[in-house]
Amino acid sequence: MTEEEKIEHIPEESEGNGIPNGGNSAKTKEDFDLATIYVSDAQYNRNVFFDTTPQAVRLYILYNHWSLKVAVYFFILVNLCLAIFEEPAVFPLPIWATMLVELLCLLVFTCRLVHYAKVIPQDKFWKDLKNICIIVILLLTLIDMIIYGALNAANCYSVRWSRVLRPLLLVNITEGRQLRRAFRSIRNALPQICYVFLLFMFSVLIFSLMALKLLGKRGLTTTNGGPYFTSYLDIVFDLYVLVTTANSPDVMMPAYNASFLFSIFFILYILINTYIFMSVFLAVVYNNYKKYLKQEVQQLVRAKRHKMARAFAILQEHKEEGGQPVVTQPNWNKLVQQVRPNMNNAHRELLWSVSDNKNQGFIGKVAFTQLADLLNIEVITLKSRPHPFQSLFPTLYQSAPSRLLFRIVRHRGFVIAYDIIILVNAVFIGLDEDNPMISNSEWAFLALYLLEIMLKLYVFEPRAFFSKHNFWNWFDTIIVVSALAATVINSSLKSMEEYTSRQILDIVFILRVLRLIRVVDSIERFRTIFNTLIRIGPAILTFGQLIIVVYYIFAMVGMELFKDKVKFYEDTTNPAKAYCGNPLLKGTAFAQFNYCKNNFNNVVSSFILLVELTVVNQWHVLSSGFATVTHVSARIYFVVFHIVVVIIIINIFVAFVLEAFLVEYSVDKSGLQSSLEKKIEELELAVEQEKLEDNLVNAMETIDNDLGTGQSAKTNTPALMFKIASKRYRTVDALLQRMFEADIDPEDFSEEDDTGNFANPTFLSA
Amino acid sequence: MTEEEKIEHIPEESEGNGIPNGGNSAKTKEDFDLATIYVSDAQYNRNVFFDTTPQAVRLYILYNHWSLKVAVYFFILVNLCLAIFEEPAVFPLPIWATMLVELLCLLVFTCRLVHYAKVIPQDKFWKDLKNICIIVILLLTLIDMIIYGALNAANCYSVRWSRVLRPLLLVNITEGRQLRRAFRSIRNALPQICYVFLLFMFSVLIFSLMALKLLGKRGLTTTNGGPYFTSYLDIVFDLYVLVTTANSPDVMMPAYNASFLFSIFFILYILINTYIFMSVFLAVVYNNYKKYLKQEVQQLVRAKRHKMARAFAILQEHKEEGGQPVVTQPNWNKLVQQVRPNMNNAHRELLWSVSDNKNQGFIGKVAFTQLADLLNIEVITLKSRPHPFQSLFPTLYQSAPSRLLFRIVRHRGFVIAYDIIILVNAVFIGLDEDNPMISNSEWAFLALYLLEIMLKLYVFEPRAFFSKHNFWNWFDTIIVVSALAATVINSSLKSMEEYTSRQILDIVFILRVLRLIRVVDSIERFRTIFNTLIRIGPAILTFGQLIIVVYYIFAMVGMELFKDKVKFYEDTTNPAKAYCGNPLLKGTAFAQFNYCKNNFNNVVSSFILLVELTVVNQWHVLSSGFATVTHVSARIYFVVFHIVVVIIIINIFVAFVLEAFLVEYSVDKSGLQSSLEKKIEELELAVEQEKLEDNLVNAMETIDNDLGTGQSAKTNTPALMFKIASKRYRTVDALLQRMFEADIDPEDFSEEDDTGNFANPTFLSA
Repeated sequence: MTEEEKIEHIPEESEGNGIPNGGNSAKTKEDFDLATIYVSDAQYNRNVFFDTTPQAVRLYILYNHWSLKVAVYFFILVNLCLAIFEEPAVFPLPIWATMLVELLCLLVFTCRLVHYAKVIPQDKFWKDLKNICIIVILLLTLIDMIIYGALNAANCYSVRWSRVLRPLLLVNITEGRQLRRAFRSIRNALPQICYVFLLFMFSVLIFSLMALKLLGKRGLTTTNGGPYFTSYLDIVFDLYVLVTTANSPDVMMPAYNASFLFSIFFILYILINTYIFMSVFLAVVYNNYKKYLKQEVQQLVRAKRHKMARAFAILQEHKEEGGQPVVTQPNWNKLVQQVRPNMNNAHRELLWSVSDNKNQGFIGKVAFTQLADLLNIEVITLKSRPHPFQSLFPTLYQSAPSRLLFRIVRHRGFVIAYDIIILVNAVFIGLDEDNPMISNSEWAFLALYLLEIMLKLYVFEPRAFFSKHNFWNWFDTIIVVSALAATVINSSLKSMEEYTSRQILDIVFILRVLRLIRVVDSIERFRTIFNTLIRIGPAILTFGQLIIVVYYIFAMVGMELFKDKVKFYEDTTNPAKAYCGNPLLKGTAFAQFNYCKNNFNNVVSSFILLVELTVVNQWHVLSSGFATVTHVSARIYFVVFHIVVVIIIINIFVAFVLEAFLVEYSVDKSGLQSSLEKKIEELELAVEQEKLEDNLVNAMETIDNDLGTGQSAKTNTPALMFKIASKRYRTVDALLQRMFEADIDPEDFSEEDDTGNFANPTFLSA
Repeated sequence: MTEEEKIEHIPEESEGNGIPNGGNSAKTKEDFDLATIYVSDAQYNRNVFFDTTPQAVRLYILYNHWSLKVAVYFFILVNLCLAIFEEPAVFPLPIWATMLVELLCLLVFTCRLVHYAKVIPQDKFWKDLKNICIIVILLLTLIDMIIYGALNAANCYSVRWSRVLRPLLLVNITEGRQLRRAFRSIRNALPQICYVFLLFMFSVLIFSLMALKLLGKRGLTTTNGGPYFTSYLDIVFDLYVLVTTANSPDVMMPAYNASFLFSIFFILYILINTYIFMSVFLAVVYNNYKKYLKQEVQQLVRAKRHKMARAFAILQEHKEEGGQPVVTQPNWNKLVQQVRPNMNNAHRELLWSVSDNKNQGFIGKVAFTQLADLLNIEVITLKSRPHPFQSLFPTLYQSAPSRLLFRIVRHRGFVIAYDIIILVNAVFIGLDEDNPMISNSEWAFLALYLLEIMLKLYVFEPRAFFSKHNFWNWFDTIIVVSALAATVINSSLKSMEEYTSRQILDIVFILRVLRLIRVVDSIERFRTIFNTLIRIGPAILTFGQLIIVVYYIFAMVGMELFKDKVKFYEDTTNPAKAYCGNPLLKGTAFAQFNYCKNNFNNVVSSFILLVELTVVNQWHVLSSGFATVTHVSARIYFVVFHIVVVIIIINIFVAFVLEAFLVEYSVDKSGLQSSLEKKIEELELAVEQEKLEDNLVNAMETIDNDLGTGQSAKTNTPALMFKIASKRYRTVDALLQRMFEADIDPEDFSEEDDTGNFANPTFLSA
């Protein structure tokens, strides 16, 4: 749909809801429902053109319910995991069982699609490519299942080809926005990548021709005594592998042994094709990624403002005749309550005071539009309340030894002491645990860690200590408590049955080592880098999905092509183990390196093999191995995988990390966020972690001074404190938006936008 | 020195030269000499605080003479190349010979330094760290030579340790600006890299500890039957190697064969340490590189403006009482004539008309300052003159068949026809040349290529065809003529003595294949990428020097540590060849892979080995090999090399290519250049390649029409045409400046700058 259509949309619905332009009529429940949807769509950057009839709005609210989304992702996961149980299976199940589960999944997806069709207008539904894609995928899967079932019943050979379509559902469901965006950014970069790739291949071909002419006739032999550089296609493959550096320096050695002058040829080749061309690929991908992502995110921001403008149009009133339309505080409050029912009043009032900074009791369009972004900033509300012990045993808790304890635990030395304990523990872990002294020391360390947690719980208010954003407190407690549990189970097993469970011991070891990570938090510089890494984590998950889609498709194709060509034998005495059960592999590098378990015999080993191919090293041995057992053209599969995953996707990943880190370094906080922080400081509600602790001391000292009246002496100290969460981006969109929002005028409501497709939901289907 | 000192410097010298502030006194030769130096220093971004006495100025002009610079680089090269002839030598020479040459080099460097000391004031000389560095290097080298000579005469073992200092001369000479800048940008990025590196090493150590606990006690064995993951230090080394992907998937296979669950550990390790941390390294290096380079280049631009302001102060006059000082056209002309004696008048007038765009006959300070940049823009002056045949045989040259020929050669089809010929030729090259049909076809192709060049020379004016900037014309002609010569020599040798010289044949093959590259020029998209690559070429040379400095130091150290530990035998029958002449290597991967020639036995093989280590693949086999023949701590050498070259320098290289490509994509032309182009177009002197050809046709047709009067009928057609060279950056500085100049105000003359060190020549000495 075009921009024009959408603009027509707004008056239509505001008139439909009977709001005269200057009227101050009371807003109905339907109005608030609609406005709530617009705001929450804006907050989560959903671009769905739902019907604005009350019935469709109710259905749409249901459609966006978290439980339904979780259910869809669960069934997609089940559908993908079917590969584990289908032939070639890790755990074989009868065909009727997997078929039944798959039918159930298809049913769920159909229901979800029907639900979606009820929410949006018919014509929009059929114009949206991703709906068509889902329908086609579902139909093809059904056809394939029928054919496969029939052929199987007739004992004929058949292929479940529709399995490659399964991961595409992940891309085409409504919630797959990030993934679609990643695919779009790849598609946009493709033409440029292609030109560079062609030039790069031209260079490889020219170098191969030169290698053939220079080295082919010299009668050189490889280490195995085979002919060296005599066939053009083999040279091209060898030199392509050299670009990935996987066969360096082996491919050079025969020529280098003949004369050191030939090494110049290879060094030049590596310089041009590995270093320069691969950097150019990264530059091209990075440049395109940046350019198109910027455009897309700017479109997203415009769409968000447009939606906020619609919500505003619904709730607007005219304070004075001919004045600007405004939204009053009561209406705003009611709206926010509906959008985020679990938000406390204080937080809501804080957001209102940021929006209405002139304290007028109403806000205009621009201030109203900020709401979607304000809701995305995570504000932590801290209640400064006394420690439970304070209420239970006031005298004891405020006694001199107890207060000395407070001082010790809050001292810097306490942290340093525990960092040293952790380092000593690291040494003890490294030592041999068969020594009884060492293995018993584990109990001492566990006791020390438990003591630390108890002391902290004694000194700090438990609910503050375990508040949602104290990552390291949670981390510590979980690790220490589970280590304690695992160690106790392990020793009781050991003492009772003289038997150590390997699994439990493994868990104990992993937990012990994980405990050491906490040292990172003590060093400021490390914490910064670590936090940045954690912050870009959710966005990396999108790439995780992207990788899974691509891997799944390649795994399905690979399993059809190469299953059971290479076998792995657990039994070491079996003579077939030496050549992976395939006589063709006798004497090949594949068998020599003992790569038998790198096969396509089930979906798990296929995935692991694809990871190895992504890492690139030795991929020529793997691909040659599979080419040996099938046909030389099997190399094409591996080269295509290399181009798709290593040259394109990994470069997009690097480009993303690069951009995210550069944004982290350059922009410190988005404007809106800092205005919220300013407001919090203005209202003297700000609190830093250290201040929080000080404040607790103060509170306690206050209590100490006038025990009888409790906290009444300091009623002007606010009981609530706010803090902006350090993990600032609740959604990937927010991070992306922050990257590029500097270029958009805050007053731009995009009605004048002539791009015509900014909120157009015809997303690419992969 | 501080900024204040320098600012005092200007009035001092202007007064010293007797220029009253409002005077219009005639400028002396000394004034012009001084102004010339300032302008040429500004043009080439030299930052030398020379004395302004006429004698020092003359010495400084001599100091900057190209022949002296070439001599210095020649002697540095000789000094570096001595390693080829010194023990362990490729071509051994007696000690007295190499010592004598080295003494000569030292003498040359001393002379150059004394010359420099005469040019700049004494106190500046001794404050400049790079001069101190050169003195220290020279002294240490001398001491080392004496000790080595004495010990050698007494037949004692001694080490020429001062050889590692040799490449540092390349960094510390006055001309090594780019190289010093590269080193500085590394030094500036180091602290940040260090923090990330420490966190990365922490992660490697934690993972190693976990691997020890999980896998150490399981009794697994490697493919060779050795113990697997039992020693902590070995695990750390193995996992460090895994970060470089060099031992993937081999290091994982034993654990993976035991259970596929262990592969999760390795996949997680690779994800975190190889993909995420290595991207973070790139991000940190790129960010720092960008940040500091920007600062430095902005300082350079300020220093350049400062120098131009000084030149202006010398030449300035006051047109009217109390008006702004200006420089008149005669003075400006004289100055430019001195700065660029070989610039033709038309070009100079063009530059003047760009500077003086109001046609006043004088220019102010801002316009004068542009001169340094204008001189850096390469303007090609084209003279439209008739073809020599036109003058010699006018009737024949203008006859109908001749004019048909013009049309054929200028037709697009002509280019396409030759592209097809080249592709056919590529197929013929790929075929077996022993077939007489194929080998004779080479003559046909050579004839076709010669014909093409002749035809073009017939149609186009030869001097225009071979003008300096027609890269492909030069390329074609040189390749075809040398291929012809080599082929003729080869066949005459063959027919006369029934013997084919291998060397000449190799050259013939290389030339034949190189000819194919020309196809790139025919495809617009490829040409763009190719031109960009060629454009960033000179800047890559700076990295070449950087790499050579680092390689040389590592090669010298490596040769002292590992020389003759591993031997290579040409003779294949020698049984010692199987274990590289060192029994310790029996059965190791190093010997199995036949890596004997990868040794430190002379400087050439050391360099090739270091390239292999840079490529990273199999570096664990190489480093373990050298650790086997010496001591396990030898691995430190290889790990340090990896950190320095792969993690730091290669990332800086990638960062540079990335930035250069992004600049190429985003900025199209610098403002100044486009203003020059605008001027050229305004004056109707512009010429495109195609227009040039059209113009020649027109000129010839004109001549055809009125043969008697020659060109007189069209005297209003300018006889000279200008074109801005497509290879736009004559200096690396110009490219860098273009990257960042957008942020500097053109009116900023930096006198207010308070950084205090912008033109400070106390460069880092490596």
